[in-house]
Amino acid sequence: MANPLLSLVGAGPGDPELITVKAMRTIGQANVILYDALANKALLEYAAPGAIIRFTGKRYGCHALSQQEINRLIVSDARAYGHVVRLKGGDPFIFGRAAEEMAAARNAGIAVQVVQGISSALAVPAGQMIPLTCRGLAESFWVTTGTTRSGGISADIQLAARSSATVVILMAMSRLEDIMDIFAACGKNNTPAAIIQEGTTEREKMVTGTVRNIALKARYEGLSNPAVIIIGEVVRLHPSMLPATIQHVTGNMEHNTPHEEEQTRL
Amino acid sequence: MANPLLSLVGAGPGDPELITVKAMRTIGQANVILYDALANKALLEYAAPGAIIRFTGKRYGCHALSQQEINRLIVSDARAYGHVVRLKGGDPFIFGRAAEEMAAARNAGIAVQVVQGISSALAVPAGQMIPLTCRGLAESFWVTTGTTRSGGISADIQLAARSSATVVILMAMSRLEDIMDIFAACGKNNTPAAIIQEGTTEREKMVTGTVRNIALKARYEGLSNPAVIIIGEVVRLHPSMLPATIQHVTGNMEHNTPHEEEQTRL
Repeated sequence: MANPLLSLVGAGPGDPELITVKAMRTIGQANVILYDALANKALLEYAAPGAIIRFTGKRYGCHALSQQEINRLIVSDARAYGHVVRLKGGDPFIFGRAAEEMAAARNAGIAVQVVQGISSALAVPAGQMIPLTCRGLAESFWVTTGTTRSGGISADIQLAARSSATVVILMAMSRLEDIMDIFAACGKNNTPAAIIQEGTTEREKMVTGTVRNIALKARYEGLSNPAVIIIGEVVRLHPSMLPATIQHVTGNMEHNTPHEEEQTRL
Repeated sequence: MANPLLSLVGAGPGDPELITVKAMRTIGQANVILYDALANKALLEYAAPGAIIRFTGKRYGCHALSQQEINRLIVSDARAYGHVVRLKGGDPFIFGRAAEEMAAARNAGIAVQVVQGISSALAVPAGQMIPLTCRGLAESFWVTTGTTRSGGISADIQLAARSSATVVILMAMSRLEDIMDIFAACGKNNTPAAIIQEGTTEREKMVTGTVRNIALKARYEGLSNPAVIIIGEVVRLHPSMLPATIQHVTGNMEHNTPHEEEQTRL
């Protein structure tokens, strides 16, 4: 009989090449793959022939499975078929509710392993050449969704706004104005900020600005979730904010193509 | 002539399988690879035949290259040979000083790209089944080295200690007692804490405890850098802190092997 096993696997931020070698191998060993809306479907090509593949997100008019339904599916599939891979966008342990799935499996006596993924919180800013830490600009970074379990704004945001940390906020576009108001109240009106929607994919969109104007700019450009909000001095390192003479020799090569031609002009 | 290009590439936390497909491909395209002490040497196997490979860290009695020397090497190698891969442990943009290398390349008119890596800050706790966020336990996480540019303890640690965030501190073993004193002064004596040395490698060592006793336990076990310190309620999800009945069906499968036998006893 099959040995029940749950692998919580990170699918990375969007770019299908930003998956690890270990995740690729683990997908290929699965009897069942349960994948999220945020996991890139291209990764399902690594599945073994005959593997059962189920989508757990929302689809045209149909509701997404509830967390409880997903937990039950993990347990029943592991018992019936053996190795279940739970393929989740980003890293499974960063706002991925993988801890709840791990607990459900543990309570059912099913072994669990984790295969780490690249988190959007770090990789989406990096894809735009914004480092979350930089000597002299930011000694630390803080990652949050900005909201509490009950839907309010986390009190931690107040502490983060007073710190010198780079603050990264995920899935918070509906609270954008409220969050910026908190930073403004801490005297950070002119702190640079950036919002990146669907980072590392071909559909990537971005605006840069300051705490004062970023919400307006984002609404004007029609940005929405999934998006990463970055607040901090490190945003100044984005190519669009550099002096014109060095703008054209930087940026993510995958997105801004004609670098070779530009270099010959130097 | 060669087109000068700098790729800042993340080597991941230690386990050579925790590198991305994109990083693997980029290493294979390099004319020169400059690698750090924290990058796993096994990854150099992806280098193309004939690629120049240089080590930039410390070695038996020899000094490591200074950051300025590395910056100069990047520029001269890119001009002489073309594509330079700077292979750095973890993610290049998280405490990796890649921002300084990016600036040096930009100032020399050399194009830069980033290939994100798995950061130890997130992946090392995950490898021990400790999620940095979990609904009801921690809504956010804060990552720092704990020290400022001048070597003092960062004022941000005070704010982090007062928040409900999971706090992750890298490369701070020499300041362990001082850091725990700050958390204790915020009434967090009994908050669980863990320290993981050389996480995701075969040499991994770990202690768990509380803010009150973790420094003593770590000194007793002889733990030192490179290590990840985790402070927060999520540490309670580590298998060693769970009820005995479910301890044996969890944990990282790569490190705790005989799961199949154990499951048959359920």
